[in-house]
Amino acid sequence: MGNTFGRLFRITTWGESHGGGVGVVIDGCPSQLAINEEEIQLELDRRRPGQNKLVTPRDEADKVHILSGIFEGETLGTPISLMVYNKDAKPEAYKNMKDTFRPSHADYTYEAKYGTRNWQGGGRSSARETIGRVAAGAIAKKILIKDSIETIAYVRQIHTITAEINRDVIKQEEVEKSLVRCPHKESSDLMVEQVEKARDEGDSLGGVIECVIRNVPAGLGEPVFDKLKADLAKAMMSLPATMGVEFGSGFEGTFLTGSEHNDAFYMEGDRVRTKTNYSGGMQGGISNGEDIYFRIAFKPTATIFKKQSSVTSDHKETELQAKGRHDPCVIPRAVPIVEAMANLVILDHLLINKINQQ
Amino acid sequence: MGNTFGRLFRITTWGESHGGGVGVVIDGCPSQLAINEEEIQLELDRRRPGQNKLVTPRDEADKVHILSGIFEGETLGTPISLMVYNKDAKPEAYKNMKDTFRPSHADYTYEAKYGTRNWQGGGRSSARETIGRVAAGAIAKKILIKDSIETIAYVRQIHTITAEINRDVIKQEEVEKSLVRCPHKESSDLMVEQVEKARDEGDSLGGVIECVIRNVPAGLGEPVFDKLKADLAKAMMSLPATMGVEFGSGFEGTFLTGSEHNDAFYMEGDRVRTKTNYSGGMQGGISNGEDIYFRIAFKPTATIFKKQSSVTSDHKETELQAKGRHDPCVIPRAVPIVEAMANLVILDHLLINKINQQ
Amino acid sequence: MGNTFGRLFRITTWGESHGGGVGVVIDGCPSQLAINEEEIQLELDRRRPGQNKLVTPRDEADKVHILSGIFEGETLGTPISLMVYNKDAKPEAYKNMKDTFRPSHADYTYEAKYGTRNWQGGGRSSARETIGRVAAGAIAKKILIKDSIETIAYVRQIHTITAEINRDVIKQEEVEKSLVRCPHKESSDLMVEQVEKARDEGDSLGGVIECVIRNVPAGLGEPVFDKLKADLAKAMMSLPATMGVEFGSGFEGTFLTGSEHNDAFYMEGDRVRTKTNYSGGMQGGISNGEDIYFRIAFKPTATIFKKQSSVTSDHKETELQAKGRHDPCVIPRAVPIVEAMANLVILDHLLINKINQQ
Amino acid sequence: MGNTFGRLFRITTWGESHGGGVGVVIDGCPSQLAINEEEIQLELDRRRPGQNKLVTPRDEADKVHILSGIFEGETLGTPISLMVYNKDAKPEAYKNMKDTFRPSHADYTYEAKYGTRNWQGGGRSSARETIGRVAAGAIAKKILIKDSIETIAYVRQIHTITAEINRDVIKQEEVEKSLVRCPHKESSDLMVEQVEKARDEGDSLGGVIECVIRNVPAGLGEPVFDKLKADLAKAMMSLPATMGVEFGSGFEGTFLTGSEHNDAFYMEGDRVRTKTNYSGGMQGGISNGEDIYFRIAFKPTATIFKKQSSVTSDHKETELQAKGRHDPCVIPRAVPIVEAMANLVILDHLLINKINQQ
Repeated sequence: MGNTFGRLFRITTWGESHGGGVGVVIDGCPSQLAINEEEIQLELDRRRPGQNKLVTPRDEADKVHILSGIFEGETLGTPISLMVYNKDAKPEAYKNMKDTFRPSHADYTYEAKYGTRNWQGGGRSSARETIGRVAAGAIAKKILIKDSIETIAYVRQIHTITAEINRDVIKQEEVEKSLVRCPHKESSDLMVEQVEKARDEGDSLGGVIECVIRNVPAGLGEPVFDKLKADLAKAMMSLPATMGVEFGSGFEGTFLTGSEHNDAFYMEGDRVRTKTNYSGGMQGGISNGEDIYFRIAFKPTATIFKKQSSVTSDHKETELQAKGRHDPCVIPRAVPIVEAMANLVILDHLLINKINQQ
Repeated sequence: MGNTFGRLFRITTWGESHGGGVGVVIDGCPSQLAINEEEIQLELDRRRPGQNKLVTPRDEADKVHILSGIFEGETLGTPISLMVYNKDAKPEAYKNMKDTFRPSHADYTYEAKYGTRNWQGGGRSSARETIGRVAAGAIAKKILIKDSIETIAYVRQIHTITAEINRDVIKQEEVEKSLVRCPHKESSDLMVEQVEKARDEGDSLGGVIECVIRNVPAGLGEPVFDKLKADLAKAMMSLPATMGVEFGSGFEGTFLTGSEHNDAFYMEGDRVRTKTNYSGGMQGGISNGEDIYFRIAFKPTATIFKKQSSVTSDHKETELQAKGRHDPCVIPRAVPIVEAMANLVILDHLLINKINQQ
Repeated sequence: MGNTFGRLFRITTWGESHGGGVGVVIDGCPSQLAINEEEIQLELDRRRPGQNKLVTPRDEADKVHILSGIFEGETLGTPISLMVYNKDAKPEAYKNMKDTFRPSHADYTYEAKYGTRNWQGGGRSSARETIGRVAAGAIAKKILIKDSIETIAYVRQIHTITAEINRDVIKQEEVEKSLVRCPHKESSDLMVEQVEKARDEGDSLGGVIECVIRNVPAGLGEPVFDKLKADLAKAMMSLPATMGVEFGSGFEGTFLTGSEHNDAFYMEGDRVRTKTNYSGGMQGGISNGEDIYFRIAFKPTATIFKKQSSVTSDHKETELQAKGRHDPCVIPRAVPIVEAMANLVILDHLLINKINQQ
Repeated sequence: MGNTFGRLFRITTWGESHGGGVGVVIDGCPSQLAINEEEIQLELDRRRPGQNKLVTPRDEADKVHILSGIFEGETLGTPISLMVYNKDAKPEAYKNMKDTFRPSHADYTYEAKYGTRNWQGGGRSSARETIGRVAAGAIAKKILIKDSIETIAYVRQIHTITAEINRDVIKQEEVEKSLVRCPHKESSDLMVEQVEKARDEGDSLGGVIECVIRNVPAGLGEPVFDKLKADLAKAMMSLPATMGVEFGSGFEGTFLTGSEHNDAFYMEGDRVRTKTNYSGGMQGGISNGEDIYFRIAFKPTATIFKKQSSVTSDHKETELQAKGRHDPCVIPRAVPIVEAMANLVILDHLLINKINQQ
């Protein structure tokens, strides 16, 4: 259960990190959308391993294959099946993890749940699962851009380095220039240093991604349970390694009073605007036309190359020395994944909202 | 759309703050559960208005009526319909808000979405909607307690006062002793002072609730999208006035390295335990048997009694002086609501998990 | 489970035949639809008991109450909660059925499923449950009529009497003139005779309802599983006492060859038409713009007043002599219920189809 | 939309008749089930084209590939992705259908819905889509057989030939012996004759499949909308070419009175039984432990090789002379598809029912 996301633009992902491959089926994509493999590949390339010196050296081109739903360059309205083969799988590297649970990984919990697990590299809990999300997100992005809706995520903090970033003006190309996807040059350099240091020490780092969504029309988000912020929160907290999410003023906003925090209205031409945007672009869980923005906390990568106390699958205490290929800091590669999930949520709500007024 | 929550234990709420009443239909409650109106009323009394000097003086007994699904004191397996009538509705108090959007309320966004709104006191976006959640949560709680699963929430911060609370030992009676539902006596007194001051100034405050869920068996939570943390995040962010949620080490945890943050395993008798619990009781989005805990940020109440800049529904700038009855700080009343949502999520996953292993 | 129907126009019904009442919550109704209790009542009056000499004498006005979702005469977009109180409940009449399973009723199967049942008059399996469907269907009908979509059902067969009816021209007022809702006068008279004879003998009759839906635009129905015919079939087979459903040429069509059965296309002005309509208005499960029509078989009412062999709830053989109030033939009262379900399905697909093309 | 079936055992199919291939993703399969490609292939071989002289000569081995969810011979609990490549696709054979709608096919309705269609051989409306259903059904069957639940379908009627078959004793091997999957030898021979005659004349035939499900425990099926008969009806009417479905006594039963039709109870040891089974194994839409049985009407195949009146996609009248490869009678190949859908429904309800009692 739980491998499907969305109501009207609906994706189902499948696949383990070591197996035939990973993929996604998209149901509910409107027909006659022009889309091709190259456009999807662009987004996958942003998340793929081996893209630079800071990320896992696993060598996967992550080449996407369109298996159905697109005909003569356009969507048919039928399910779009996308697949990526696993190429550089090295299950043997995980053999010593076969019988030992890696701390803060999902090995133990999967085994508790299912009585079994694919012990080769994380199986279904591997971040490779997010390939399907990013591929589907690329299609969502193509639809949203027609309405000028644009989602940009970037790294705001890695470990102790926090960048000051003006989220109102940031552009994706500025983000992509940085190895760690932090558009503030000095912070980016310091972050790279910290990540390299952690990597060299066999340790890992966490951090915070901020995401801004622009030009969302007012009115998206369903009361009561499917508030836009609720669905975005679910989307983000469904990502591996996430520990928290906050919208607008977030946890800091709790130190303000109502008179400081309320977003006063004014008119800009014939458009209703707010003077401040502590609300993060949503009120009552429904978009108000201002920028939607939020931050997501990612814990330090669970895989480290230091000796750790653990237990075996037959419940004996042991020590574990991890091997395999991993990112010392997953945040930079998580940026396109965050964007993909945001785009999936916004598109789904855009479609749902078509039926709310007669 | 969006008025249903849960997959197997499934609730649908209905009702506006000023209208016939509010209610909930629960589908999927197992049969032969002994439950009566008094047990449900106990939880509703914890959230009802007028319960003490700090909350809105709206006088509602919020008396619950069981309309179906329970026969001779036990559930039938058929839908349970619960209803509370609106008694002390004072729509006339809202007349000046009829044509003016209250800042940081949902007036504008509802109107943008639906082209109309019930302007009497918040309508569907009112916190009265949560009555149905609390009533359903009371039933979920009764089922969970059979498995010793226990959810306790409490106020950890109001405005600038943060209480140090040992979440491992806290009991509900300690929480209920405090007017602001903060079990740390000195902090509670300071919080009460702050809330009274804000109320007297016509202002409002926000804060943070922490929630701990004990004795959840390992294995709850569905990969990939329906991770336990994802569903809890959605549940919490579907509550009015919430701005963020963080699990375990949360945003603070991003400052640790992997070697500091990983939760090492050990055996306690024949039970797999972790030495620390930075993960907040979940790994890979699946419960590991440790306490699940998280914190939720609530913004300061949007209703304040100071003059504010706003716009009218025909898009003219104006000033608004709010009237009506409101809480200067919603957090204390939100405590039973947070518990209810947590219980609904845990029970739903407990039922889902029955089918995962043969 | 299973008390919710529809994806975008979504209804959840609740209530037992003897209890506080029965009701429905409608989620997904577009905002700003003018609708009032009288319009809903009109449809409920067509299905209510006691409306004439042929139906159960249970005296229920079935007066509908709007509890939420409608404000100043228009829908808000929020859930519409509708309720009907049970007035003339006579649980004592069912006492001798408390411990004995009525043959071909749901007593035994409910008890097998839930380990309990409300033995007062059928409980949840009573046809009173359909009140919520009819009330919701009245709202759907109001929306559909704006697009000239019109659903008409009528009795085509009772027991051995089958009426020849020209479904292309039939009007609702012709149907309503007949006590048995058969618009063919001579057949209607014969049917009334048969029903009265059955009633006098303490026996019961079944029959067939035909339903035609006009002016459905081409393109409704989702491949693959949610074909229009599949959803209509589910809707109809979810009604009490139904035994089968057939579309277009139905079972008779299996005796034709393809060259006889295929519906050849031609142009009528700029509209694509078919010369025949064996397909029943759908091809590939998607509407083609021709009239949709189908027939539903209803078994003879399970309640009869003759002695029957049965078993007790503690599994001893016994004889049962039924009491209580029942229809000797449910078909006439089922006509508005069939229409309601058809309207719910069509509206749901009309809303879904809004998102299929860009 | 509409490419997902089931609630807990949930399948999503994808693929067009001419494209990369067709497949299915199964979410919700319990873990630790032993299953392999050979077992799935067995069922696919029963539905594949080219299996004998009566079916389409399209040469497809329909070899299934397991892409995920199965590890070391057992299910993981994660999504099972199954795929079959399209090998013998001959899109050029369909070129003359590119611009002309085939009568009683889905060409026109797909184009009306989506504004486009894959004109190569039926695209998504092709019966090749059912490959995913059959593959998933094979897994469901393996789970059900552990509870001795067994589904057998067979051809009961082709065109004018109706076989008398004792559904209580029929075995699958008897069905498989017949080219047309009719276990009554003389009827089978006559049917083969009729199909060959139709094929030689370029015409096509329809007929009726009967399906019996044995050893279903009492209690499956959810009131109200998700009655077992409702879900079976939907499943069957979601199959290509189906025109009707009837359970138990079906349309014939409408000619009986209640006293003739009611299924009297008796005890067989400690098991509650019914003397007759007009109800078809379900009462109130819930299984009662008797055999579930139903019949499905299939129209004559829409593809015939006679000249037909039609219209072009730019709405001009024309004549069509079909080419391509097709079955003169689809019924024999539909037998395993019917079984697959029945097994999917029963398993889904078996899982749902696990949560109904405490």
